[in-house]
Amino acid sequence: MKPLRSLISLEEASKRVDEAIHPLDGVEEVELDLSLNRVLAEDVVSPLDIPPYSRAAMDGYALIAEDTFQAGKFSPVSLECTDVIHAGQVPRTKVERGKCIQIATGAMLPEGADSVIKVENTDREGDKVLIFGPLYPSAHVSKQGEDVKSGATVLHQGDYLVPSRVGALAAIGRERVKVFARPRVTVIPTGDEVAPVGSKIKEGQVFDINSHTLYSILAENGCEPIIHPIVGDDIHSLTKVLEESMLNSDMIVMSGGSSAGDRDVLEDVVADLGEVIFHGVQIKPGKPTIFGRLGEVPIFGMPGYPTSCLTNGYIFLVDAVRKMARLPAKRYEVVEVPLGKKITAQLGRHMFLTVVIRDGQAFPVFKESGTITSMAYADGWIQIPPNVDLLDKGALVKVHIFQ
Amino acid sequence: MKPLRSLISLEEASKRVDEAIHPLDGVEEVELDLSLNRVLAEDVVSPLDIPPYSRAAMDGYALIAEDTFQAGKFSPVSLECTDVIHAGQVPRTKVERGKCIQIATGAMLPEGADSVIKVENTDREGDKVLIFGPLYPSAHVSKQGEDVKSGATVLHQGDYLVPSRVGALAAIGRERVKVFARPRVTVIPTGDEVAPVGSKIKEGQVFDINSHTLYSILAENGCEPIIHPIVGDDIHSLTKVLEESMLNSDMIVMSGGSSAGDRDVLEDVVADLGEVIFHGVQIKPGKPTIFGRLGEVPIFGMPGYPTSCLTNGYIFLVDAVRKMARLPAKRYEVVEVPLGKKITAQLGRHMFLTVVIRDGQAFPVFKESGTITSMAYADGWIQIPPNVDLLDKGALVKVHIFQ
Repeated sequence: MKPLRSLISLEEASKRVDEAIHPLDGVEEVELDLSLNRVLAEDVVSPLDIPPYSRAAMDGYALIAEDTFQAGKFSPVSLECTDVIHAGQVPRTKVERGKCIQIATGAMLPEGADSVIKVENTDREGDKVLIFGPLYPSAHVSKQGEDVKSGATVLHQGDYLVPSRVGALAAIGRERVKVFARPRVTVIPTGDEVAPVGSKIKEGQVFDINSHTLYSILAENGCEPIIHPIVGDDIHSLTKVLEESMLNSDMIVMSGGSSAGDRDVLEDVVADLGEVIFHGVQIKPGKPTIFGRLGEVPIFGMPGYPTSCLTNGYIFLVDAVRKMARLPAKRYEVVEVPLGKKITAQLGRHMFLTVVIRDGQAFPVFKESGTITSMAYADGWIQIPPNVDLLDKGALVKVHIFQ
Repeated sequence: MKPLRSLISLEEASKRVDEAIHPLDGVEEVELDLSLNRVLAEDVVSPLDIPPYSRAAMDGYALIAEDTFQAGKFSPVSLECTDVIHAGQVPRTKVERGKCIQIATGAMLPEGADSVIKVENTDREGDKVLIFGPLYPSAHVSKQGEDVKSGATVLHQGDYLVPSRVGALAAIGRERVKVFARPRVTVIPTGDEVAPVGSKIKEGQVFDINSHTLYSILAENGCEPIIHPIVGDDIHSLTKVLEESMLNSDMIVMSGGSSAGDRDVLEDVVADLGEVIFHGVQIKPGKPTIFGRLGEVPIFGMPGYPTSCLTNGYIFLVDAVRKMARLPAKRYEVVEVPLGKKITAQLGRHMFLTVVIRDGQAFPVFKESGTITSMAYADGWIQIPPNVDLLDKGALVKVHIFQ
């Protein structure tokens, strides 16, 4: 006798997944340019001042501000220009009272000088430079260390590396950086009727769709997915593959078994090797979703139907793996548009419907859980809460865009 | 004598970039799992019906609907169950009048049968199956080809491959797929003061920041960036490297030269080898941006200052390379929050300010164009149009989130 199986709500299911998932601690060192969209695993301390030396912020002349204090529009001060400093050069001479040195933006400020006058505000006559107004000390000078002091922490463990932060790492000369390792997620397709893509399909078989949908969702959410060869739905095969996979995976996602019998076999195997945390959620599609734990390794048993598996990926997997990977929550683009067609829903089930947006209206492309066209044509999905049984044409819906 | 240089508006600059940029035609074939986030370069036609055979949509019994027409709640019809079909199996026997075959979800419908009754709606006594209500023909059957007919176009050239579409390709068994090639963008850092990350910095030098910021922006917008070794700012070096790079790049992005002199050299070299389309835009930071064309290869001369180069990357580069790559427009997350601090802007310049969001308010982190902390800490950026010179504390601003 099997006990009565009661479904749990989407909220309860999400809560249980969240409780069972923990950020991973693995760390690896990667090249700077490969650190994009990774999560920093170290506090990054600057080994140098930035700027590393006081430098000109403008093209002009390095001088001593006090020499300009008497300058006026009709009574210019004249300074003698004694040298030129290009960016990258070390100044050869110092600036003395009554003198100045021509300097390029970014070039090192010569000794003696405390400010830079913009070239536009001067006139040049031979080696004489005329200055028509006073400057304050430090004018147009970026002082050594004014942005970052040597020893200061520039970025912190847990920072998400967007392009601007990769640039900040470059600024302090980092060629390699420690980031949190990506979760290794083993995707295990099951089912005797499933054949790998590229193979010659036999009568009674279908191609393995879910492994590739799941691979894609995992890859774009910071994981290192591995697709396992297809496994039979029997207890022996499932037990063997799970015992192996739990040793080298941070998470396992099973992707087959549409029939109730197959689901029960998977539930039994998970219960035997670990713990079933739930089996059955009040969502449509995706009701027969299994979630559990093999030791510390979370395991999902996704529905076999391709569209159920797809929306389930978005509902459960994205948040779960991003938490493991310590990534910020996924930001979906959500557009609000009117429905182009009436939708009848099912009370008591939280519905996820793939839709296409045409002429500013959302039309369901979901025909039944198994359909491929609904996956190929969909622009995104909408949700219908469990207490709504009808959405009229024209009702405003929020479309989560696939991107 | 140089002619008077007039700056152009951001709108005009964006328009000129858009006019000079064309989608690329290069095509490559990739493995299915590497096609994620690429753009399809072929119309994909299904070589098979989907479903490939008529199959059960539920666990139950395959039967002839007409046998159930007389069934009622209190006058069940009894059929003899003659066999079992699991998913992946080819049926061994056919269904005859008065008989049925047990069938699993997804399994091939046996010859003779035209419908499936759900197991929940039956009672089983030995090899007898009791049925308590009539079924219509085709009930719970997914008919061969009802989703996709062999020869139908499932996806079209230009479709952006999100996980659901990768799944659709798997459904028709595609192991490899033709996608548009990624734009090869050569990033050329220039400047005698610039040293590569990981090197020992010399006095008067700074690390090459911009190459890595640009690499990141390009990589996350569908390009194949290549960072060229650092090049001197002189005419001879620039001419040589551009003559070489224009032969094997779809776009060139120069990333240095903060000083007016360096910019003029670059402008001269671009004018000599091709055409300067603009030099100088009414934006802050990023005013001295150069855009041109070397034969068919677009070239950007980005400002040398790291934050200018960063915001310029978002302003010009993202749209340009996504158009070349045929990718959909970048979707930014934009949040509207009040300013935590008054900002004085400059009339006549379209401003881009990096900001951090703290306690639901946006605070500028932009100190000056050269600062690294502003890059490390920024959550995103705001724009201030050229006809606004003051934004009060509390004014609502739209923050484009770095992601």
